[in-house]
Amino acid sequence: MSRVDPGALAAAVEARLPLADRLFEAIREATADTVGVTRPAWSDEDERAASIVGEAARDLGLEVGRDLAGNLRCTLPGADRDAPGVLTGSHLDSVPTGGHYDGLAGLVAGLVALASFRDLGAKPACDVTAIGLRGEESVWYGIAYVGSRLAVGSLPAGELDRLRRDDTGRTLAEHMAAVGVDVDALRAAPRPPVSSANTRAFLELHIEQGPVLVGEDLPVGIPTTIRGNVRFPYARCTGRYGHSGATPRAWRHDAALAAVELVRTLDEFWIEREADGVPDTVFTVGKLYTDPAHHAMTKVPGRCDFSLNFGGTTKAFLDECRDRTRALAGRIGTERRVEFELGECVGSDPTPLDPGLRDRLGKTCASLGIPLREFATVGHDASIFARAGIPSAMVLVRNAHGSHNPDEAMDLADFSEGTKVLAAAIAGLAA
Amino acid sequence: MSRVDPGALAAAVEARLPLADRLFEAIREATADTVGVTRPAWSDEDERAASIVGEAARDLGLEVGRDLAGNLRCTLPGADRDAPGVLTGSHLDSVPTGGHYDGLAGLVAGLVALASFRDLGAKPACDVTAIGLRGEESVWYGIAYVGSRLAVGSLPAGELDRLRRDDTGRTLAEHMAAVGVDVDALRAAPRPPVSSANTRAFLELHIEQGPVLVGEDLPVGIPTTIRGNVRFPYARCTGRYGHSGATPRAWRHDAALAAVELVRTLDEFWIEREADGVPDTVFTVGKLYTDPAHHAMTKVPGRCDFSLNFGGTTKAFLDECRDRTRALAGRIGTERRVEFELGECVGSDPTPLDPGLRDRLGKTCASLGIPLREFATVGHDASIFARAGIPSAMVLVRNAHGSHNPDEAMDLADFSEGTKVLAAAIAGLAA
Repeated sequence: MSRVDPGALAAAVEARLPLADRLFEAIREATADTVGVTRPAWSDEDERAASIVGEAARDLGLEVGRDLAGNLRCTLPGADRDAPGVLTGSHLDSVPTGGHYDGLAGLVAGLVALASFRDLGAKPACDVTAIGLRGEESVWYGIAYVGSRLAVGSLPAGELDRLRRDDTGRTLAEHMAAVGVDVDALRAAPRPPVSSANTRAFLELHIEQGPVLVGEDLPVGIPTTIRGNVRFPYARCTGRYGHSGATPRAWRHDAALAAVELVRTLDEFWIEREADGVPDTVFTVGKLYTDPAHHAMTKVPGRCDFSLNFGGTTKAFLDECRDRTRALAGRIGTERRVEFELGECVGSDPTPLDPGLRDRLGKTCASLGIPLREFATVGHDASIFARAGIPSAMVLVRNAHGSHNPDEAMDLADFSEGTKVLAAAIAGLAA
Repeated sequence: MSRVDPGALAAAVEARLPLADRLFEAIREATADTVGVTRPAWSDEDERAASIVGEAARDLGLEVGRDLAGNLRCTLPGADRDAPGVLTGSHLDSVPTGGHYDGLAGLVAGLVALASFRDLGAKPACDVTAIGLRGEESVWYGIAYVGSRLAVGSLPAGELDRLRRDDTGRTLAEHMAAVGVDVDALRAAPRPPVSSANTRAFLELHIEQGPVLVGEDLPVGIPTTIRGNVRFPYARCTGRYGHSGATPRAWRHDAALAAVELVRTLDEFWIEREADGVPDTVFTVGKLYTDPAHHAMTKVPGRCDFSLNFGGTTKAFLDECRDRTRALAGRIGTERRVEFELGECVGSDPTPLDPGLRDRLGKTCASLGIPLREFATVGHDASIFARAGIPSAMVLVRNAHGSHNPDEAMDLADFSEGTKVLAAAIAGLAA
């Protein structure tokens, strides 16, 4: 692509906001639920969303198709069609009665970028494809990133018949077939559609799901890393129920105060590490409960269940969280005469985003006069492309009230800023 | 009563254990439930228990009657019938499917003591009465010690029609009438049956409801004080739900970690005070729970409910617990951007037991070769008599597995030791 004037590209993006607005509204109408939107993965609803975007892409003269897994692909052909392409986009599916922009914003931003290139008459050096992925939300088939895993070939074929949709009980293969995916062809495919051989970069725009950009009054953020985590989803402390008045401390086996000591000590550890300058860590005890069938104000609790969820950008930090939890549970269990069963420890390693792409995005922000704010983010499809060896990066757009709820609120002006950054980075990559 | 030889009295008690055994078994049979026993207050069941004891008392030649509230009274007449008498006993009622000896042991011990005096031909200087109280368990009418409150006149008359039995919904007055209590006469009574003018002492034998005597391998304990308490039954911390990965610490309003910090700090305070030598304190967080309708491993909790229950033997300690809780809730709430609503603070002042009677019981233990172990205990009918100005004290008997459950287990040999102590103390008082 001939070098595009950054100011002209920004203006072209701005001029294409009505297209974004029209797509957002048409898809909202087509997938509205009692509140918010519901777009299950490989359903009539995400199919409708894909069709609406695909139709708009055809109107723009783009090549529109599906990969074998049913992910939507809208491509602006490059001068060299064999050169590794640039991929952008995000997911089509939502959680039940979820927010509208979680995922969809990234696909629409990709389409707006491609429309802007066409409007400027800029032909890229390589293919640039906006992709609409399916099955990012784990709520449908129990695991996340199904569409992107299929795109890069990292989902074992057996999973198509093993994964079942939580609400229908039918398999992923059945749901795929019901929306026209040729599952036999998918199974027989010799290689995945997306690889580091044919894709030079994956860029994903996504709404921020946390409060940082709203809190700091910034339109756009650039993620550094997709956090890894260490999780004990089903931890439990077992002690012995006792009379609250008649049991002196020395005779107690208090499961709640033991769990509280463990949690508080881990909280202090987190605060301490943060003070030491370890960046972007999180610690959440989302569930903590004495047994409602047995607990009472006047009983020493004999059981307390809880979850532990650590997030961080380095494996060293996460390993420390896991090791410390186990050591503390051992010590506190002995001291307080209770037993901790931490249960299965699950998690994922951190996925650093591509430094070159991040640098490019940062410079683009600077050239557009957008303050650069970098921080770690949570799991996104980008992590799947990154782990497949494709240089990947993200642009986060300010969004109020978090995600996975109908109150999620992205302003079109912020979407515009994010899309300008995205488009400029793609233009640079495809020049 | 002519001074009774302690050895002879102990032997007489020992010889009357078959009576105790027979009463326990007859009442167990008459009030058995699917598991354990169920003796609601002012019901056919506690009435049956009273009748069985009353019949045995008549066989022993004792005066048997009821006070106006329906409490059973079995009296060994004294030489001076107008002299203030000695009262001993405990409650007839149990919790649903509860333990057999909780309450009943005290009445049976009183009867065994009176039988022993008769067997020895010892006539007391004043009346000695074994009382079978009703409605000690709060489970029936929402408040505890109903029978003893009626005995000393500390239950307002209006409560007879206001208190309703939890399971039947019928009033206390209705249930009383159904078992033959003349409620109109009770309402019209000019003065209560028991007062400091007509009663020189109340002595209550009761099973220990905690693990101390079992743990220390001792048959008998002598309580120093009936602990007071400060309770926040319905405390709550309200924050804001958030994405566990996308919300940095600075933006969190984490209700669970805030509640955990409060609870842990209070736990540390308790441990510290105990180390400072403040005796017989307890601290229980019987209920602690994130909201099961909303909590998840991946959500920062927006709400955490809990109860706080402090017990102690001095008002100063209890006041400090309450004040410290409020101050901490304020500080932690501000620091962590959450709101604590501690809710109603309820409680009771500690009730010291009579030093003279305790001293007498201690000396009796020594004379019988029973190691003296003194510690604070929980609420019992004795507290009502003590608060009414009647010198009161207690004898606790070793009991496994706590109380309020069918596994409660008192050994007859320990009951015998406790009854010997009780009988000797009564003999001394009535000499």
